[in-house]
Amino acid sequence: MGNIFGHLFRVTTFGESHGGGVGVIIDGCPPKLEINVKEIQYELDRRRPGQSKITTPRKESDTCEILSGVFEGQTLGTPIMIWVRNKDARPQDYQDMAIKYRPSHADATYDAKYGIRNWQGGGRSSARETIGRVASGAIAKKILQQYSGVEIVGYVKRIKNLEAIVDPTTVTMEQVESNIVRCPDSECAEKMIELVEKIRDLGDSVGGVVECIVRNVPKGLGSPVFDKLEADLAKGVMSLPATKGFEIGSGFAGTTMTGSEHNDELYTDKLGEIRTVTNRSGGIQGGISNGENIVLRVAFKPTATIRKEQRTVSRQGEETFLAAKGRHDPCVLPRAVPMVEAMVAIVLCDHLLRHYGQCNTLKSENVYGN
Amino acid sequence: MGNIFGHLFRVTTFGESHGGGVGVIIDGCPPKLEINVKEIQYELDRRRPGQSKITTPRKESDTCEILSGVFEGQTLGTPIMIWVRNKDARPQDYQDMAIKYRPSHADATYDAKYGIRNWQGGGRSSARETIGRVASGAIAKKILQQYSGVEIVGYVKRIKNLEAIVDPTTVTMEQVESNIVRCPDSECAEKMIELVEKIRDLGDSVGGVVECIVRNVPKGLGSPVFDKLEADLAKGVMSLPATKGFEIGSGFAGTTMTGSEHNDELYTDKLGEIRTVTNRSGGIQGGISNGENIVLRVAFKPTATIRKEQRTVSRQGEETFLAAKGRHDPCVLPRAVPMVEAMVAIVLCDHLLRHYGQCNTLKSENVYGN
Amino acid sequence: MGNIFGHLFRVTTFGESHGGGVGVIIDGCPPKLEINVKEIQYELDRRRPGQSKITTPRKESDTCEILSGVFEGQTLGTPIMIWVRNKDARPQDYQDMAIKYRPSHADATYDAKYGIRNWQGGGRSSARETIGRVASGAIAKKILQQYSGVEIVGYVKRIKNLEAIVDPTTVTMEQVESNIVRCPDSECAEKMIELVEKIRDLGDSVGGVVECIVRNVPKGLGSPVFDKLEADLAKGVMSLPATKGFEIGSGFAGTTMTGSEHNDELYTDKLGEIRTVTNRSGGIQGGISNGENIVLRVAFKPTATIRKEQRTVSRQGEETFLAAKGRHDPCVLPRAVPMVEAMVAIVLCDHLLRHYGQCNTLKSENVYGN
Amino acid sequence: MGNIFGHLFRVTTFGESHGGGVGVIIDGCPPKLEINVKEIQYELDRRRPGQSKITTPRKESDTCEILSGVFEGQTLGTPIMIWVRNKDARPQDYQDMAIKYRPSHADATYDAKYGIRNWQGGGRSSARETIGRVASGAIAKKILQQYSGVEIVGYVKRIKNLEAIVDPTTVTMEQVESNIVRCPDSECAEKMIELVEKIRDLGDSVGGVVECIVRNVPKGLGSPVFDKLEADLAKGVMSLPATKGFEIGSGFAGTTMTGSEHNDELYTDKLGEIRTVTNRSGGIQGGISNGENIVLRVAFKPTATIRKEQRTVSRQGEETFLAAKGRHDPCVLPRAVPMVEAMVAIVLCDHLLRHYGQCNTLKSENVYGN
Repeated sequence: MGNIFGHLFRVTTFGESHGGGVGVIIDGCPPKLEINVKEIQYELDRRRPGQSKITTPRKESDTCEILSGVFEGQTLGTPIMIWVRNKDARPQDYQDMAIKYRPSHADATYDAKYGIRNWQGGGRSSARETIGRVASGAIAKKILQQYSGVEIVGYVKRIKNLEAIVDPTTVTMEQVESNIVRCPDSECAEKMIELVEKIRDLGDSVGGVVECIVRNVPKGLGSPVFDKLEADLAKGVMSLPATKGFEIGSGFAGTTMTGSEHNDELYTDKLGEIRTVTNRSGGIQGGISNGENIVLRVAFKPTATIRKEQRTVSRQGEETFLAAKGRHDPCVLPRAVPMVEAMVAIVLCDHLLRHYGQCNTLKSENVYGN
Repeated sequence: MGNIFGHLFRVTTFGESHGGGVGVIIDGCPPKLEINVKEIQYELDRRRPGQSKITTPRKESDTCEILSGVFEGQTLGTPIMIWVRNKDARPQDYQDMAIKYRPSHADATYDAKYGIRNWQGGGRSSARETIGRVASGAIAKKILQQYSGVEIVGYVKRIKNLEAIVDPTTVTMEQVESNIVRCPDSECAEKMIELVEKIRDLGDSVGGVVECIVRNVPKGLGSPVFDKLEADLAKGVMSLPATKGFEIGSGFAGTTMTGSEHNDELYTDKLGEIRTVTNRSGGIQGGISNGENIVLRVAFKPTATIRKEQRTVSRQGEETFLAAKGRHDPCVLPRAVPMVEAMVAIVLCDHLLRHYGQCNTLKSENVYGN
Repeated sequence: MGNIFGHLFRVTTFGESHGGGVGVIIDGCPPKLEINVKEIQYELDRRRPGQSKITTPRKESDTCEILSGVFEGQTLGTPIMIWVRNKDARPQDYQDMAIKYRPSHADATYDAKYGIRNWQGGGRSSARETIGRVASGAIAKKILQQYSGVEIVGYVKRIKNLEAIVDPTTVTMEQVESNIVRCPDSECAEKMIELVEKIRDLGDSVGGVVECIVRNVPKGLGSPVFDKLEADLAKGVMSLPATKGFEIGSGFAGTTMTGSEHNDELYTDKLGEIRTVTNRSGGIQGGISNGENIVLRVAFKPTATIRKEQRTVSRQGEETFLAAKGRHDPCVLPRAVPMVEAMVAIVLCDHLLRHYGQCNTLKSENVYGN
Repeated sequence: MGNIFGHLFRVTTFGESHGGGVGVIIDGCPPKLEINVKEIQYELDRRRPGQSKITTPRKESDTCEILSGVFEGQTLGTPIMIWVRNKDARPQDYQDMAIKYRPSHADATYDAKYGIRNWQGGGRSSARETIGRVASGAIAKKILQQYSGVEIVGYVKRIKNLEAIVDPTTVTMEQVESNIVRCPDSECAEKMIELVEKIRDLGDSVGGVVECIVRNVPKGLGSPVFDKLEADLAKGVMSLPATKGFEIGSGFAGTTMTGSEHNDELYTDKLGEIRTVTNRSGGIQGGISNGENIVLRVAFKPTATIRKEQRTVSRQGEETFLAAKGRHDPCVLPRAVPMVEAMVAIVLCDHLLRHYGQCNTLKSENVYGN
């Protein structure tokens, strides 16, 4: 249960850290979309381990294969299956974890739920599961781009107490990718890298905040009640590993303002479009996109698996200590950026198709007698 | 689209502020649950307008009727339909809004999506829609209570900059209900009430934070990937009107800690249960409940509809000004408390039934040959 | 569980025979569809009891009310709630059934599943549940009609051994409605009416076959695998009470032909449309509509509730006899016609919106750079 | 769209005839089920091409690999991915079909829907897609067997006009597997084989009927309205390629009986179980299993792809002729038997988990205060 996401653009992921491989089936992709394995690989490379000195040194090229759904470079409209074979698996690094639970990790809860777990590399709780998400996100991005030039740019906004200064209306993907920590404020980026290295050397970890901006969003995505656009975005990103919080637009800070300060007044721009003067709403009002930039933030906790020794218990409930071996990220933020972007893209793409189905069918040229 | 929530315990709401009525169908409720219309009415009374001097003065008793699914005081296992007829509707108060969009409200986005909207009282975007949620939540709470004595207690944690001091492990429903602002810190509550009254008199509004705690949660609820328990909780509460942020456990504050500071170390308690020393995880690890208290927070923005005049545009895009008439809450927080509790209850109840279906079927006494 | 149907055009029904009422929520209806309560009532009148001497004499006007989702004569795009209050309820007629199970009815199975049931009038298993389906079907028909002039005509093809001769390509709704048994072969219709009256007087019942034809179907509805159009049609009509079989196109008879006899050869018509010479496929190939008429048949068993005494058991398992009181249809076929049409309309409408969402979004005028 | 089946036990298939491979993800499988790749391979071998002289000679061993979800011989509760690499692909055999539509096949409708199709071997419309279904069915069968000893036995009941005599209450899997046509009436089986060979030599094809029986079904599976057990069974089997009809219990023949003849009278057996004297209901009443044998029949049309020349059109609409090359089954029935069994198993398994979730959660030993 719970491995399927989306309603029309549906993504189903599979695979464990140390099983045969990980991947995804995308059901509902529009037909005749030109898609190239390189476009998917580009996003997977942003996610893969070992990409820099501040990520886990696990050596995985994460080279993907498209097994179905694409024919002569175009999508068929039928399920797209993309997968990556696991290569650099070292189950021996996890022998301890077969019997001892890592604090603040999924080990104990998987056992409580299922009575069994693949302890090698965290099994299904491994961040390797997000390969399927990132691959799907690459396709969702392309659909959105093609529909109305949607741009999704995520970046590291804060690590521990180091907060970057970024203008969400102008930040570019190039700026984000210009350094290994994926923070477009280059001065702050340097300090972040230093901090992560220091923390890593101490056998500890740090967390932070990813901000994600979406530009050229079509108006009308989302819906009034349970499937509000911000609700589905919240679910999407809060389903990523290690997340602890979500904000849209003004977020928690907005709660200290009065209504007259917080409201986004309306005006009509030169093209006759209804616009908002400010964007405290973060591009969504009443659950539906208003065409302004979507701005959201996601809190990531410090990585749970650390080399420092910690108090814990064994599967049998005996108290013991654990100092994790294995190869772990001292800070998940740089690799979390493409994951957040992917989930945002999947949510928006699903809502785009849903919106079209409900609201444009009877507007189409086929309507009888028109 | 988007008016159905849940997978096994499924809630579908209907109705507009000024239509014939509002209500809900609950599909998938376990059979033979004893349910009394008074138990549902109790929760609806906590939500209804006009309950105190700091809420909207709209006079609605919100008296509910159970139309189906309950027979001789017990649920049948078939759909439960509960509804409330609208009474104190004053469409004339909204004549202005038929042609002018309220800033930061759903007026413009509904028109962008659907090309039509019921402007009377906000139509479907009205908080009256939450009647169906609160009624369903009353039933979900009862199921959870009966299963393992689950207690869900929500309260106002902050209004604007006034933050209450509350111990989530001991706070009681009685403390919450002891004042009209639903803040268990009585000293802070008084200041909050004063502030809301002052703001109301200025024709303005304020926002804040609701915190919600769940005790006696069964272990094992939730699932590893998209339907992580925190992801579904985030979606559930972020689908409430006026929400801007969500936190679980340590939330955004947790991002400033190191892993060794943040991790919840494990121990075995006197009953042999595996427990955590701290609870920065907020009762969920790897998407699955660990049996500790679930703690979450929701940011509510200041009410968008205010009496103060604001710049806006008409449906035709002409720039104009609007000072809202109608009867509005200067602060949604006190009435938001039962709404948050309801969504939390619905999410947990749905996951309880799902967990049972997947993980307990083959453990049951019917298993062949056992 | 199981009271929600459809994926984008979603129908949720509620209500028991002798509860407060029965009805439906439709979620996902396109906005700005003109809809009049009379159009819905017209279909409900075709379904209602007491409409002729060969149906149950229960006196229900089945007058419906639209509670939400329609504003000034147009759909809002938000949930449409339609309901009918129960009036002529006579629980006393069912006292026997509180303790004795009717053979071939839902009484024993509901008790086996839920441990409880509303025995008054069959509760949720009553054909009154189909009111919500027929009301939704009226709206689905209108969407389909507006999209491409789709016509759905159902009729009684056979009662017991009396089989009508009907040309599905030309049969009209007027012919169907010209007699109380809804059989367009007027000669056969007379014999059918005679037969039903005779059987009714014997305290017994008869079954038969409804055939349903859909004309002007857009090409491309349906999908290749699980949600084949014929699979969803089969599910839709087999979810109606008393159904025992389903056929599409050549059906069971087609299994006696060879491939070269059975295949529908292709040609191009004067308008340049690709067409089939014959229509043994029944308008669907590979799960997807090909633009030819959809032709399907549904087997309805003889009504289970009869006045003749039968052997049965009590809730406690004691063997006993039962001769049903209450007011029952000696033959469900005439009233089943609008039910079959409704389910067919709902399935096609859902697939129309789904098809549009997946396959037309990237064809639209909004596509970037085109 | 439409490649996902089931609600709690969810099956998603992928792959085309001549792509990289075909397979399935199963989401929602109970944990700790012992599963061996051989058990899955056994069912795949019953489905694979080239298994006998009366099936297509395509040489595929269809050797499956389990990529995830199983650890040390037990299911993890997380997604199980099973796949088969395509080997004996001969796209050149299908060159004609790249430009000409096969009559009564999916070629034209895929193009109408998607504007693109993988013409090699029928792409997604190939019966190879059912590999994922049969693999999932093997797991579903095991769950059902373990729960209450459920036995599912499918067999060829009729080919063209050759109808077998089979007693559904006693027929065994061994009898079915004792000949290559999978008909337990060995005398009739011989005639069937002869017929299929003759038809094959003529370049033509034949259809028929598969009957499927399920024994030891738990009472209470299914639900009252849209998700009636027979409705989901109908959808499941009607989603298989080449199906034209479905019957449960008495089926179309039952419509010629009167109610007093057709009803299944009730009695109490020696063990105190409520049973039916006859089984015209086919094991389901009111949408819910009653514990009697489930009996259903599925009509399969003669294979559409034949060597005989037929009239058809090209993609451009030009009229032409086509005599199919490639390697096709002259009769799909023998290979359809495991496919029908698989879909029946998947539907029952899904309903078993759903039933447990809704109806047993509050009966469990965890219920508070009991």
